[in-house]
Amino acid sequence: MQTKKNFFGTLVIGLLALGQTLWAQLPDPGFTIDNRTAIVITDPQNDFLSENGVAWGLVGPSVTQNGTIENIATLFELATKHEMPVLISPHMVNDHDHQWEFAGAMLTFAKQVNLMKKGKSTEAGVALGTHGADIFTGYHKYLKNDNVFVTSPHKVFGPESNDLILQLRKRQIDKVILAGMLSNLCTESHLRELVEQGFEVAVVKDATAAAILPDMDGYKIAQANFTLIANHVFTTEELKAAFLKL
Amino acid sequence: MQTKKNFFGTLVIGLLALGQTLWAQLPDPGFTIDNRTAIVITDPQNDFLSENGVAWGLVGPSVTQNGTIENIATLFELATKHEMPVLISPHMVNDHDHQWEFAGAMLTFAKQVNLMKKGKSTEAGVALGTHGADIFTGYHKYLKNDNVFVTSPHKVFGPESNDLILQLRKRQIDKVILAGMLSNLCTESHLRELVEQGFEVAVVKDATAAAILPDMDGYKIAQANFTLIANHVFTTEELKAAFLKL
Amino acid sequence: MQTKKNFFGTLVIGLLALGQTLWAQLPDPGFTIDNRTAIVITDPQNDFLSENGVAWGLVGPSVTQNGTIENIATLFELATKHEMPVLISPHMVNDHDHQWEFAGAMLTFAKQVNLMKKGKSTEAGVALGTHGADIFTGYHKYLKNDNVFVTSPHKVFGPESNDLILQLRKRQIDKVILAGMLSNLCTESHLRELVEQGFEVAVVKDATAAAILPDMDGYKIAQANFTLIANHVFTTEELKAAFLKL
Amino acid sequence: MQTKKNFFGTLVIGLLALGQTLWAQLPDPGFTIDNRTAIVITDPQNDFLSENGVAWGLVGPSVTQNGTIENIATLFELATKHEMPVLISPHMVNDHDHQWEFAGAMLTFAKQVNLMKKGKSTEAGVALGTHGADIFTGYHKYLKNDNVFVTSPHKVFGPESNDLILQLRKRQIDKVILAGMLSNLCTESHLRELVEQGFEVAVVKDATAAAILPDMDGYKIAQANFTLIANHVFTTEELKAAFLKL
Repeated sequence: MQTKKNFFGTLVIGLLALGQTLWAQLPDPGFTIDNRTAIVITDPQNDFLSENGVAWGLVGPSVTQNGTIENIATLFELATKHEMPVLISPHMVNDHDHQWEFAGAMLTFAKQVNLMKKGKSTEAGVALGTHGADIFTGYHKYLKNDNVFVTSPHKVFGPESNDLILQLRKRQIDKVILAGMLSNLCTESHLRELVEQGFEVAVVKDATAAAILPDMDGYKIAQANFTLIANHVFTTEELKAAFLKL
Repeated sequence: MQTKKNFFGTLVIGLLALGQTLWAQLPDPGFTIDNRTAIVITDPQNDFLSENGVAWGLVGPSVTQNGTIENIATLFELATKHEMPVLISPHMVNDHDHQWEFAGAMLTFAKQVNLMKKGKSTEAGVALGTHGADIFTGYHKYLKNDNVFVTSPHKVFGPESNDLILQLRKRQIDKVILAGMLSNLCTESHLRELVEQGFEVAVVKDATAAAILPDMDGYKIAQANFTLIANHVFTTEELKAAFLKL
Repeated sequence: MQTKKNFFGTLVIGLLALGQTLWAQLPDPGFTIDNRTAIVITDPQNDFLSENGVAWGLVGPSVTQNGTIENIATLFELATKHEMPVLISPHMVNDHDHQWEFAGAMLTFAKQVNLMKKGKSTEAGVALGTHGADIFTGYHKYLKNDNVFVTSPHKVFGPESNDLILQLRKRQIDKVILAGMLSNLCTESHLRELVEQGFEVAVVKDATAAAILPDMDGYKIAQANFTLIANHVFTTEELKAAFLKL
Repeated sequence: MQTKKNFFGTLVIGLLALGQTLWAQLPDPGFTIDNRTAIVITDPQNDFLSENGVAWGLVGPSVTQNGTIENIATLFELATKHEMPVLISPHMVNDHDHQWEFAGAMLTFAKQVNLMKKGKSTEAGVALGTHGADIFTGYHKYLKNDNVFVTSPHKVFGPESNDLILQLRKRQIDKVILAGMLSNLCTESHLRELVEQGFEVAVVKDATAAAILPDMDGYKIAQANFTLIANHVFTTEELKAAFLKL
């Protein structure tokens, strides 16, 4: 152990001294797109992506800066072209969820502002209107495609209480390209849970966005965790290039 | 929706203009210690807490700065005094886990440096030696207490693949005081999963620590997510004060 | 071990010799109804309970024999009177679920006969019509009550891929009175999973029913497993008596 | 719906009239062995398989009748020959598990007779002695093989609280050949949970066994549920034949 420690300690000190960071040393396992790959998008809903959304004041700057709306659209286009499934995991709150006895800080806040409150259901069972919890209006055209569908909603941040994992496994999917809202909350909880459930996951960082405040940059925080936890982090441009090589 | 957006937009702009952040406005649901509360500590093991540990070069500064070792010891003392269960959720890798076909960046790195590689088992089934994966030597004395025990190991970051949740529920525990290593990895994944499984969770921030590098401060990242996701964040001093009022 | 074996062997032989069975010796842990108790009903839907249901030919005899429809109604009445939550965990299949690559025998059969195929959604999001997957028409009146609601659907047999567990925990429920369809499939998978997730569970046996065929009596099979796995098995009459004592 | 019901009703009546059962009509999806297949064995431990085991009085007759010990040995042999992973999911109870506040009937009984009480750990961490919870002595020779290993223990009946699912996914396994003890308890809960987690599962029926009492034949009960829930049910002979064709 002494040998390992000395080696390791020297490596780190050496890197810092050279102004290098461990980032350059952290392995990049990589991610190969194949026919057992699907795209998963968290919370692409009006409350987060529409200028009329309840949370636009908080997340709008990040969405605009990253080009998140266009980048998510690119993922839909790539998927349709390559016949790849796209699963949307929406966040949604029903009336009866307001009976909950307790919740963490963010979810308590969300309840106060009626974030993602379920609107009228459409005939298809997928909310295709302009309510906050409905799928972003700009993406409704993609929902007509056979390769795109919406799972049951998650209620906290991750897919532990919806059927996302089952839907992936029943389609013999092992690898996920992940995007959506919010980078450090629902998207990151989906990343962590998919990894715990044995999927390989790549995150498309600029196809996500978060709340950015002076003291807390949700997007920057998530970058570090994406890099540590996922198999690879792509930009949308890098992902397009990867699809071109298929 | 227009009304909500205007109100919300005005609120945020107002706050920013005043130099305030949403932090001051984010609800703090609070956390009340009761007889359905337990302490959970992630990865209090030699590789993270001992100067001889494989990861000391990376995490030592944070551990030292936060007083993590002493603060975790305080949690053990408080628990014993108040007959509160303490569950340790250790990270451990067996030989056969090295057959895994894939892993994310951090776990690939961990494998390369033999982080948390399982040492000899003791008769009791709990690793009480000086190997990297053994419980930190400074805490061995607490393991003799009836209220302290070790769950089966987790292999990724969260408690999805061990019996932590079952052990809590079988003791009629609904509320968790969380501490341990590393703030933004195993501790945070435990926070997220406990919340998904319907527990109320408070994090004791300076009883955690992380890897800190120029480009990535694992401890600072975790603070933001702890605050957003948990019911409350304590310092060890604040927690001691809360226990005094019981 | 030798001593234990001899004792145990003698006990069993003794019992058999007397024509007794271990049933009389199997402990009955019992189940106390309190304010942390809820009722969970699996699949109380037209396809199983209506004479027009797709599966009526298979399950009708058992439903009729047990008085299942009336007994489940009794549970709704008891719950409303005692302000106890009732959570309905429905089985439902969407169009996109028909893209699944594989399924076990029963689910393959169910797909062939379009069992529980999702009908039109109502405005409330809960299927209150006469389609096979809609909640049994005789129970629609109960759905107006605040204490009754419907979770997201399960797609296989158990609550692993819906929000039932989360909804129970968020209401600080630890104890479940379980009923519904089919005794040895969805009801039993809910029993098993609730137990794995640390709930105490009592089954109301005649408020369940199953498919009964010459070679396979789904109701009888389930009785044995209910008795082994649950904390207690009630008849509806016994449960009514237990509620009277509250 | 009326049309479906009439057709279905007629089909069933017709079958019953002819003395046929639905069994002949229930689809058999089948199971193809490939390089994404593994064998999972539940509870092949001394308390269930050794004549000195605590439960031998209850399960011995079924084990003997089915040839379970030899059949499980055959699975080990086939797996080694075909380089297929074998994962053993053991049942084990630690001292601290005796602090549980509640349990169902069977687990309460198990606690009373000290079923599967953890013995001394060996150096390797796998219990290779003659204690009740140790792996059956007749199988110790197989544990030396690289393709065979033991997961962390389950504590109730299913793999919800151990790392079995993770270990399968990390080896890119989607398909499980399932065997072990007891047919209607741990083996069946593993079947149900593996199916919920999106695996294809085949059960080798005579490589399982159960408690058989006058009023309750655990093996017979399990046959019906295996047939309904799994993709296919093999006898050991049929499985050998399937392997020969690879």
